[in-house]
Amino acid sequence: MALIVQKFGGTSVADVECIQNVARRVVATKQAGNQVVVCVSAMSGETNKLVGLAHAIGGDDPLDREYDVLLSTGEQKTIALLAMAIHQLGHRARSFTGGQMGMRTDGAHTRARIRSVETERLRSVLDEDGVAVIAGFQGVDEEGNITTLGRGGSDTSAVAVACALEADVCEIYTDVDGVYTTDPRLVPQARKLGRLSYEEMLEMASMGAKVLQIRSVKFAMRYGVPIHVRSSFSADEGTWVTREEDVMERLVVSGVTCNRDEAKIHVKGVEDQPGIASKLFTPLSDSGIIVDMIIQNVSSDGSTDVTFTVPKGDYRKALDLATKTVSEIGAESVDGDEKIAKVSVVGLGMKDHAGVATRMFAALAKEGINIQMITTSEIKISVVIEEKYTELAVRALHAALVENGGEAPVVP
Amino acid sequence: MALIVQKFGGTSVADVECIQNVARRVVATKQAGNQVVVCVSAMSGETNKLVGLAHAIGGDDPLDREYDVLLSTGEQKTIALLAMAIHQLGHRARSFTGGQMGMRTDGAHTRARIRSVETERLRSVLDEDGVAVIAGFQGVDEEGNITTLGRGGSDTSAVAVACALEADVCEIYTDVDGVYTTDPRLVPQARKLGRLSYEEMLEMASMGAKVLQIRSVKFAMRYGVPIHVRSSFSADEGTWVTREEDVMERLVVSGVTCNRDEAKIHVKGVEDQPGIASKLFTPLSDSGIIVDMIIQNVSSDGSTDVTFTVPKGDYRKALDLATKTVSEIGAESVDGDEKIAKVSVVGLGMKDHAGVATRMFAALAKEGINIQMITTSEIKISVVIEEKYTELAVRALHAALVENGGEAPVVP
Repeated sequence: MALIVQKFGGTSVADVECIQNVARRVVATKQAGNQVVVCVSAMSGETNKLVGLAHAIGGDDPLDREYDVLLSTGEQKTIALLAMAIHQLGHRARSFTGGQMGMRTDGAHTRARIRSVETERLRSVLDEDGVAVIAGFQGVDEEGNITTLGRGGSDTSAVAVACALEADVCEIYTDVDGVYTTDPRLVPQARKLGRLSYEEMLEMASMGAKVLQIRSVKFAMRYGVPIHVRSSFSADEGTWVTREEDVMERLVVSGVTCNRDEAKIHVKGVEDQPGIASKLFTPLSDSGIIVDMIIQNVSSDGSTDVTFTVPKGDYRKALDLATKTVSEIGAESVDGDEKIAKVSVVGLGMKDHAGVATRMFAALAKEGINIQMITTSEIKISVVIEEKYTELAVRALHAALVENGGEAPVVP
Repeated sequence: MALIVQKFGGTSVADVECIQNVARRVVATKQAGNQVVVCVSAMSGETNKLVGLAHAIGGDDPLDREYDVLLSTGEQKTIALLAMAIHQLGHRARSFTGGQMGMRTDGAHTRARIRSVETERLRSVLDEDGVAVIAGFQGVDEEGNITTLGRGGSDTSAVAVACALEADVCEIYTDVDGVYTTDPRLVPQARKLGRLSYEEMLEMASMGAKVLQIRSVKFAMRYGVPIHVRSSFSADEGTWVTREEDVMERLVVSGVTCNRDEAKIHVKGVEDQPGIASKLFTPLSDSGIIVDMIIQNVSSDGSTDVTFTVPKGDYRKALDLATKTVSEIGAESVDGDEKIAKVSVVGLGMKDHAGVATRMFAALAKEGINIQMITTSEIKISVVIEEKYTELAVRALHAALVENGGEAPVVP
């Protein structure tokens, strides 16, 4: 008998019929001899409606505490309805709000972090052969105030509960049937991955693969709970996200991702002195701007160039700040470009296999795509290119590095 | 400085604009130097939507526990939005669900009874010059399960909180501007009462004046908290419901009410023996049928007739049960009538003034209305008549007993 946590998102519980489908799925899992905890989001559209009301009354900046009280009603509706639907199928079920189950968070409304998860009440439902139905996305702080984990927090709720219960698996049901080597809408040859490691999933998620929330993957990684990403609409196996040692098929490259949400800023003729980088980036971080890639090459004749990327939404502000700093630090000039894209290849196998970078650069060169920036991590290589080449680059890299089976060629 | 509990029903918080109106009203009360606790219902239409969902999934008999989890989201939405709206007007406000404020009830889902009300958290908001915004209709049981008080329970929530806080007044805002001597749609001469006693209000409420929930009046009576029923749409004084000794203007008759929701059953030739009434009524109460009026006259030649009324919805069932019993107890026959109405006159002054009954019967006789049954209490006289005469009877009684100022005539 396994203990399984299942999480269903908003589209999986969009209406009465969908909720009944989820109930059937839960009951089937239970009848196969498992204990089941189900974590659900608000019915799709519900959260947007509530957000609309909040802004209609609270203006641009509605009271955070009350915003959470309001939004948490969305999941509360779903848990009640799902518990009813399971009951209609002849099985015991009991719903729990975040507060009722003991999902304790800090007091940072609208983006709370989980502090601890109580399991006593959930266990007692499971022990009585019942299904525990829990509200994702929400918790309570020390004083009993309702908090929310931020959008998409339901994945995190589910994984956190799975960790606390030491569940055998946390199944994340979604409208796609797993994690793909790249976006199938872009590359028809994209294929579903059977397994990948937490680390790979993190790199994929942060690059724009929107299947799983980064926070939930980090949680699962810390506690070693396997995540199974699968479709609400089929019984097929999806993609398992697990410890590196459980990933049998170590693909050299398991995915190609792209991100068009960043802009680049280029500071020329920066004096190569200690403290200059700090002077450049402190105003940005003070303004809450998140800098992603930073490139600084070795200097020639005492000066160097620094290039970095920021979210497109912060581009104007970042450029203004950088321009101000440039005159202070006596740099030569500053310019920027919004029409860029970051394309990355991710894979555990890179650790052991040389040559991925070379093959990547060759594939891009063959298509005449110029590389503007490069960064690497142990299991990822990212390049910045002109935005208009995004699809072409993704297809070329997928063909060169994934479609051949991920075998690393011997590079001369 | 007074401590005022204000309760706004669903139509008063129906949309964004309504909620903003309520916020202005609350702030005005506060700016006049009062401490304010506001109790709100779900936005009108919301509860019906939730009930619809519950039945779509849970069938005729959705799980009670989950039904309460579902329905309680309605008020939770309103408290968050109202707290935001008050904040927008520059005042502090904090919302509380039933569980958060400590509205403790028994575990009878969908019709829970209040056991205790904590005041600590509400007081601390008031002490910090804030407005406490509380969800009506809902509470939690000993184990932290969400409960609801039954439809219209928001009045009861508000009054219970007013009692616990020893508030100076509980204001019930509604879409009428007070309690009238009778239904103004029926009798244009109906006038608004300035004050009436809890006892009168109870008799009026149970007779079909739907302004206030009976439970809330009983609560207020027990703890001596004045209720002020008034309009959400005007600043005029409404009707105060208070202790008898605070009702200065002791009207002989303060109201005429009618009720068309009952049917009568007439059992003829019942043997006048101990235990017969018990045999007749036990099957009814076992079936959950609430019997209202019961009339049994002194017997002649060892047998008597028993007549009683039941809700129209239970009429067929009650008649079947009575028919079965009749053959068991050897009574002569049983018949019934659904086309009846109960018309009542209510007034504290009846206690001291003779002649109200006489004037009532005379007024009905003058219109040729036959009286089928009569019951009386200290401050009420009810008669059952043919349903088609309802309006005529109400108008005649209002003219004879209320419109003359309620002065008791000397009856010859």
